[in-house]
Amino acid sequence: MTTQEVADKLVGLCSAGKLDEAMKTLYSKDIVSMEAGAPPGQSRESKGLEACIAKGEWWAANHEVHSAVVEGPLVAGAHFSVAFKFDVTFKPQSRRFVMEEIAVYKVADGKIVYEEFFYSM
Amino acid sequence: MTTQEVADKLVGLCSAGKLDEAMKTLYSKDIVSMEAGAPPGQSRESKGLEACIAKGEWWAANHEVHSAVVEGPLVAGAHFSVAFKFDVTFKPQSRRFVMEEIAVYKVADGKIVYEEFFYSM
Repeated sequence: MTTQEVADKLVGLCSAGKLDEAMKTLYSKDIVSMEAGAPPGQSRESKGLEACIAKGEWWAANHEVHSAVVEGPLVAGAHFSVAFKFDVTFKPQSRRFVMEEIAVYKVADGKIVYEEFFYSM
Repeated sequence: MTTQEVADKLVGLCSAGKLDEAMKTLYSKDIVSMEAGAPPGQSRESKGLEACIAKGEWWAANHEVHSAVVEGPLVAGAHFSVAFKFDVTFKPQSRRFVMEEIAVYKVADGKIVYEEFFYSM
């Protein structure tokens, strides 16, 4: 798949709330995922598909999603970017907020090998 | 200016080939600029408006631009992303190529305070 095809599939699956399926079908087993920040003592970086799926499962278990908007993609060579806007409640604190972020992805051999998220904390 | 307003102005100026004016009017004096890579012994990171303008002047002096396409912006909170496609000739080597990159920007107090470029090398 080209970068454009991978990007379109990711946007389609995420728009349908299928983040887990997006990871399982589009991510390389060697994916590197970089957050904008991390809790004290933890790393911004997750390595490998299993770690990313675990991060996604934690997120899904701890957030109630009221609405989700996925914009993009913008495609340039092997990279593409997407904007995410999630209206969520963080369940452990019953705190509702809008999570807005820019995600950048790199594609190699038809799979996503790198992702990085940009948001304010 | 909101993130959307800064993003729209940047896209407008870059589409018109006015990269220098974009920096001088939209960048914070404390801008941090991060390239995807750097020559051996040099840093990926440039700090401060003067360093960014100098980098831009080097680029403009060393590349003949045949065409430029600017796509976006995608806006999310304080961040936005843009795709750039420059058909250029690198003058010192008379080498023509298409430079494609995703740029991510962060806005604070109506100015761009951080930019990072994603491209393959």
